[in-house]
Parts: sequence; C-alpha cells; structure tokens
Amino acid sequence: MKVDLNADLGEGFGPWPMGADAAMMDVISSANIACGFHAGDPDQMLKSMSAAVARGVGLGAHPGFPDLQGFGRRQMHMSHAEVANMVTYQTGAAVAMARAAGGSLRHVKLHGALANMAADDAALARAAYEGALRADPGLIVMVIASTAQEEAALSLCAPIAREIFADRAYLPNARLQDRRVAGAVIHDPQIVATRILKMLREGAIIAEDGTRIPTPIDTICLHGDTPHAVEIAQNLRKSLEAEGVTIAAF
Amino acid sequence: MKVDLNADLGEGFGPWPMGADAAMMDVISSANIACGFHAGDPDQMLKSMSAAVARGVGLGAHPGFPDLQGFGRRQMHMSHAEVANMVTYQTGAAVAMARAAGGSLRHVKLHGALANMAADDAALARAAYEGALRADPGLIVMVIASTAQEEAALSLCAPIAREIFADRAYLPNARLQDRRVAGAVIHDPQIVATRILKMLREGAIIAEDGTRIPTPIDTICLHGDTPHAVEIAQNLRKSLEAEGVTIAAF
Amino acid sequence: MKVDLNADLGEGFGPWPMGADAAMMDVISSANIACGFHAGDPDQMLKSMSAAVARGVGLGAHPGFPDLQGFGRRQMHMSHAEVANMVTYQTGAAVAMARAAGGSLRHVKLHGALANMAADDAALARAAYEGALRADPGLIVMVIASTAQEEAALSLCAPIAREIFADRAYLPNARLQDRRVAGAVIHDPQIVATRILKMLREGAIIAEDGTRIPTPIDTICLHGDTPHAVEIAQNLRKSLEAEGVTIAAF
Amino acid sequence: MKVDLNADLGEGFGPWPMGADAAMMDVISSANIACGFHAGDPDQMLKSMSAAVARGVGLGAHPGFPDLQGFGRRQMHMSHAEVANMVTYQTGAAVAMARAAGGSLRHVKLHGALANMAADDAALARAAYEGALRADPGLIVMVIASTAQEEAALSLCAPIAREIFADRAYLPNARLQDRRVAGAVIHDPQIVATRILKMLREGAIIAEDGTRIPTPIDTICLHGDTPHAVEIAQNLRKSLEAEGVTIAAF
Repeated sequence: MKVDLNADLGEGFGPWPMGADAAMMDVISSANIACGFHAGDPDQMLKSMSAAVARGVGLGAHPGFPDLQGFGRRQMHMSHAEVANMVTYQTGAAVAMARAAGGSLRHVKLHGALANMAADDAALARAAYEGALRADPGLIVMVIASTAQEEAALSLCAPIAREIFADRAYLPNARLQDRRVAGAVIHDPQIVATRILKMLREGAIIAEDGTRIPTPIDTICLHGDTPHAVEIAQNLRKSLEAEGVTIAAF
Repeated sequence: MKVDLNADLGEGFGPWPMGADAAMMDVISSANIACGFHAGDPDQMLKSMSAAVARGVGLGAHPGFPDLQGFGRRQMHMSHAEVANMVTYQTGAAVAMARAAGGSLRHVKLHGALANMAADDAALARAAYEGALRADPGLIVMVIASTAQEEAALSLCAPIAREIFADRAYLPNARLQDRRVAGAVIHDPQIVATRILKMLREGAIIAEDGTRIPTPIDTICLHGDTPHAVEIAQNLRKSLEAEGVTIAAF
Repeated sequence: MKVDLNADLGEGFGPWPMGADAAMMDVISSANIACGFHAGDPDQMLKSMSAAVARGVGLGAHPGFPDLQGFGRRQMHMSHAEVANMVTYQTGAAVAMARAAGGSLRHVKLHGALANMAADDAALARAAYEGALRADPGLIVMVIASTAQEEAALSLCAPIAREIFADRAYLPNARLQDRRVAGAVIHDPQIVATRILKMLREGAIIAEDGTRIPTPIDTICLHGDTPHAVEIAQNLRKSLEAEGVTIAAF
Repeated sequence: MKVDLNADLGEGFGPWPMGADAAMMDVISSANIACGFHAGDPDQMLKSMSAAVARGVGLGAHPGFPDLQGFGRRQMHMSHAEVANMVTYQTGAAVAMARAAGGSLRHVKLHGALANMAADDAALARAAYEGALRADPGLIVMVIASTAQEEAALSLCAPIAREIFADRAYLPNARLQDRRVAGAVIHDPQIVATRILKMLREGAIIAEDGTRIPTPIDTICLHGDTPHAVEIAQNLRKSLEAEGVTIAAF
C-alpha cells in the first residue's frame, strides 16, 4: 500500500508566520503552498517551496479567495470566469516561484471557502480547475474524495489525487462535519492513526455513523496549524509505516 | 529600417478602466500588460492579452510595486530579494494569463517607480530581471536605452530590446526630463513623429540640448493614457511607415 | 412637498476616476462617499467631501465590503461582528475625512452587495448600523424603503431617511428588479421623472405590475455612473422643482 | 518622578497574531494600536482597544504606510497631502474603534518607516500630525524626543509626549543606532532598567558614546514583539517603581 501525506503550508504573510512548516515538511510528501490571495506572499512562497524542494516534498499551488483578512475562509460570490482567472493567476505565480525554488509545480488544491464551495458545486470546481490547467496543463488536481470536486476534475480528464482528511469527522455523504460541532476535529493522535489505517485498508471513507463510502485514497490531508498538529502528523506517518504503508508523493 | 512600437496596456483595475486599449492595440506591435500589483487584475489581464493575441501584438509582462493607490509610481524601498520575488510572482502570473489568452509571453518591462529606480541602479535592475527570468528564462528584457537597466540586462546575457520614448524630452544623460518641467511631455503629434524619425535615422537619442547619445533603438514607447495619445500613436505609425520604416515586434 | 436627492460619489480609486462627480454635485442634496474598502481612498474622500461641502451637499458614509476588484458588488459572508467592526472603521474614517473637508458627516448608507444582503436580512442590517452608530451616534441611517434595512434601523431607534430609486423598476415586494432583466434600469429621463413624481404624490412605491407599497419617501437615489446619469438627474430635479417639490437634504 | 510606558500593540492581522498583547497590557500605561494599513484590522483593533480600556491603558492610534507585506517598515515616497490624508483616515478609524471599545483615543504615534522618515523631516512629520489632528484636534502627539517629530509637533502647538526607547542604543544625535549594528538592541533586562533610570534622573538621553542630550522624558517605548520583550518590560516597570517612579499615562 502507498499513500501521499499533504499539508497546507506557506500560510504566513509578510511579518506574520503561521504553522510549523519546518516540522511538517519532514513528515509530508506533498505541500500545498498558499499563493498570495488568502495568505502567502512572494517571499514566503519562495522560502516554503525551497524548503520543500530540499526535502523532496512535492510542490502544489493552493489558490484561494482574495481575502487576506478572512484567510480565504469567507465565502465570496464570484462569476465562474472570475474564479477561473484568479486561479490561473495564482497558479501561474506558483509555477514561477516553484521554478525559482529549483523545483516544479506538480499539483493544485483549492483552499478554504473556495474548496468548500467547489466540493458542493461541480461547475464552480470545473471553472477553478480549468483555470489551474490553463497555467499548466500537466498539473495533478488534488480533490476532496467523493465530492463535486472529484466529479469536476474527472470531467476535465485531468489526472487526479483523491484526498481524505486525517483529523476530521465525516458525515454519511462524504462531507466533513462542521468544525463548530463537538467531535468534528479529532485531537487524539492514536485515534487519527487507527481510523486512517482502517480507511486505507477498506478503501473507503468511514463516516462517524459507520457509513462506508468506497473510494480510492491517494493522499491524506494533515493540518499544520492546530495544536498537536505536528505530533498527530508524525504519529500518523510512523503508524502507517509500521503497518507497511509507503509514504510517497502521488 | 524596422522598429517596434510598445505601450503599457491593461492598466484598469476591477470596475475602473484606463486608457484607450482597443485603439492602441491597432497601432502597436508590443503590449506591456499590468500584472495586478500596481494595476490590472486577472480579468483585465485576460481581456487585454486576448485582444493583443487577436491582433498579433507581442505580449509583455509589466510588473510594478505593490501599490494600487499610487499606481506603482511611488518609490518603495524593498530589498533586492523582495524585488526579485515580486517580479517572479507577477511575471509567472503573466505567463499563465498569456497562455490562457492563447498566446505566450515574449518580453518583460518594468513599470513606474520601479522602472525609474532601476534606470539609476543596476543592482536593483538586475534583481528585477533575474526575478523575471526565473519565471521564464526565454523572455526578452525591454530596457530604457542607455540606462542602468540596459547595463543590468546585458550583464545577465539576456536578449534585450532597447526602448526610447516617443513623447518625452530627454536630458543629456539619456534620462527623461521630469514630467513637472514644462516641455517634458510633447503633445504635438507632428513634432513627435519628426523627432523619432530623426533619432531612428541617426541611431541616437537626441536630448533637448542637442546632445546625441548613440544607441540601437529597438522599440518606441507610446503612451495610451494621455490626451491625444491615440492620435499621437496613429500619426507616428503612419509617419514611420510613410518613410519606409517597418513596424514589427522585436 | 420636500425630498432629498442622493447619489453615490467618490467612487474612484487611486489613478482611476469614476462617475461624473462634479456634475452630480450640482444636482443632489446628499452625497454617499465611498470609504476605501470597495472604492475611494483618503485622497478621493477628501476631494469629494470638499466638493460636497462647497456646494452645501450633505455628507454621508457609504461603507462596503473589502473587495476593490469586485467594487463591493460580490457577496461576502462575514460574521455580524466582522460586519459591525468594518462599518465602524469605515464610518470613523469618513467622520474624520468630513472634518478635514470642513464639514461633518450626517448620514450613512450601505453599499452594493452589503446593502442588498442587508435589505433581506434585518440582523445583518442591524449589525451594520450598530457599527455605524458606534462611530457617530448622531448619524441618520439612509435605508432602502420597505426592506429589512428599514426594519433594522427602526429597531435601533435611529433617525432614518427612506430611499427609493429613480431609475430602477420595482417588484411587488418593494425590491428592485434584477439588473440583468430587460427593463430593470430605466434610461428615459422623462419616464424617470414621471414615475418618481407619481410615487411622491401617492406616498408609495409603485411596482411595475402596479402594486402600491405605501411608504414615506425621504430621498431619491440617482446614479452617477450610468450613461445619461447626469441628464436623468438634472431632468428629474428640474421636473420636481417645476411641480413645486423642494429639493433639500433630509 | 512620573513616566508613561508605551508599546505598539494590536499588530496582528486577520488570522495572524503578533506579540504578547495581553501580557504587555498589564505593564504599560499607553498602547499604540495599529490602524489597518501596515497591521491591524477592524476586529483586531476592537479587541486590543477593549483590552486596553479594561485595564485603564491609554489608547493611541499608530498609523503607518499602506504596506501590509512590509509591515510599514519599507520607505514609501508619498506627497505630504497623501500622508496627511492617510493619517486622517487611519486616525479617524481609530477614534471610532476606541469609541466602540468604550474608551476614547488620547494620542497618536507614527509607525515604522513613516516614523523614521518623520524623525528626519519636520515637513513630513508636520503633514502627518496635521492629518491626525484633523481627525481629533484634542490628541496628544507622541514624538521621538529631540527629533524633527518633536519640532513639527511643537510648531503645531499640539500637546506632546516625548518618547525614549527602553532597549535601543542611541547615537550622539539622539537617533537610534541601526538595528543591523551589533549592540543596537539591548536584550539584558537589567541593563535596560539601569540605563533608563539614569536617563530619567538626568533628564537626558544618553548616547552610547556618553553624549548627553537633555530632554523632558514623558514616555518610554517598550517592544512587545522581541524575545524577552515581556520580561524586559516587567523588569523595567518593577525597577522604576522600586526607585519611586510612578507609572501613569501622560
């Protein structure tokens, strides 16, 4: 068995750092780098991408809404053309920064409210992915498994990597439990490892109510900005490797 | 004789248009497109670049300082690394938008205060051009002829296009007369045409005091946002063609 | 009969002008000045407010979403606290700029998507108005007549000015016809004048289907950025005055 | 003897915190709150100001250049009118947020590169202070003692508070040693306390070379964002109080 571990990194801006980028880089195999609209700036992008290249971590663009103050987590209602164009712009910037870092961009993953809206709306997701592929037609599209994101990427015949979340409770429809609900975020590293191993073995997302949603699982999303994030990530990697799972970029 | 005509276009932002882009596109052979930091946004970039591609006008990135309110015309003191990174970012975005427009980026030209500072400071210019070439090592660097910009681009062994200004009075050191000085901007289309023809024939910038600064002249900068800009541009093109000068991208 | 005429002005940003501010200032009695988040900047605010003060036009703050590129016309989903705080911030800035212009702020009116959302959602409207009144408890709240905006302002016991739109078709529920529907915007100055006179006389909004929605009418919104805007505004003022209606700030 | 202790607080932005605001609030008597251009946003401003009000800490506006990425530490060349207007805008927003926090704004202090430029250029400082006083003519102007800032504020007949720096080495001309020079920042809490006590007793800034620059000392600037900042601040307060100095807002 083989799986990729990914995390959203490079999420500082200007004088403000965020997350434990350096520690996370040692655990993951793919990094989703903020592109300057919701977080990240050219200097942060180069720094984060250079660190990823030095460790052989795969580089991804992580485009989001143009809302620094809201960290791209507030819904914005833009036309599909506007979404496509802003994703092309951000992804193109990321392609260039990856080159400046001595690497090359391999994948794209949507951020925050844009990702959430695209998980529900295949037309929006398709606009965003078309935008990304205009910047680089060879990109792998990282999608939230079993959502409209996946449907949109498949309709574009783009190579995809299906993602599940390490520390988030699932609803029976394969969507994440709202963060504000108790139990939505799993903080115990051992529980995180056990359930992810189970999902990998069964080839399915397993919702809190026991519902199984069969899906290929190509990558597991780790958070880098929560308390215990690094501990959870390190423990998951160790547990997976102990069970013979190879960690490698898709 | 052959020369390129260039103009700074795509300088609107969001709901605000600027300049007579459509009319200018019919006159020029190269367009310098604002990249979102001092003007331009992803939608404007796509629109301007698509118009340029439709007319066979060469596409250039026109990166500037991150200062929308000041239109990139206010000096900002950034480190060389910051300048390089922000130019890589903007140029990468322009590479992607050019692709989305069905074309490809051919050149880069610095904007506003960044361009002025780089015309005086070869190390700054070099940082900016290195930033652009990291995004695309095949770009032609458009430089203000006989300034530190040219020196910097040559030191990088980059292919260059040397630019003179159609409607601006020159000082004996090849720099432009300050806009606030009377006579700094030439408004008479016929005078513009006459002096540019003279410079092309003599292979030299001719300052107001008569000083000749010999230089290859690859491109002539036309303004698109001044009164009579279109008339000046059209007249210059007609006058050049009447004298047998071919207008074509470098 | 007495009524106020208002328009959204100061909607340029940095190098980009918008609308026919000078001409509109001669027609209206109240100006809603953009506060820097969706349009306007400190320099534009001072310029517009100084022009208003010079003509005895009443000064209003016109706060909007933090979205320059989208001109505040794209919905953003912010918490009520975030909305209140951003309105306090913008209104406070407007209070200060009004003072710098030699005048004082009299009213507040929400802009764009924020206004539209608040017209449907009294809790959102209330958050926004509470935000404005924290900056200056003496402000008059300009509301779209017969919407949740009015309900929210009344619940705060704030003095209000009820607004109708000069050139927009109404639905039977007192909301505006969607701009994308044919006939939603009325371009004929004479039709604009006739229907507004009728509404004033009847003390009611009259929808396109003939439905009458009785309401006090304190102010009429004129647009400053559409073709014929100035002509429509001038004609309306002339027609109203010819029928004995006094134009004056509320 | 009586002196004020001040610190720059509220310097987070959106999702990014900065500094040990809560701990510093317990030590200082005046807080300089970032106003949204170089740091701070409406939500952060309200939170920081509310904390200050709860502890009886005096509220100040801390306006800076419009450069979030550079944290207002990069020089920008703006006209005096632009500087005045942007300071009016930021100060007005701070006046309103202070009111929303249940307090009122008492002083203004320039931030970062704007402060440094104003310490050398009395005309620039004067433009900035005029801008602040237009927002609220009753504000106390906090100036870096014995610089062009002081000269400018005195020329406006504004009430002033003269500031010295707790942990920064002085040059013989009363300016701070460049941070990049070894010894420019003093990290030893005991040395900080000893030298500040000495300056207070002698009524003079004492430069590293021993030069004495006599000046009233109204307030001492503490840093909140350096390692050991809180420890240095707490120790200084304790040391001053142990020597009978009263800590209170000016």
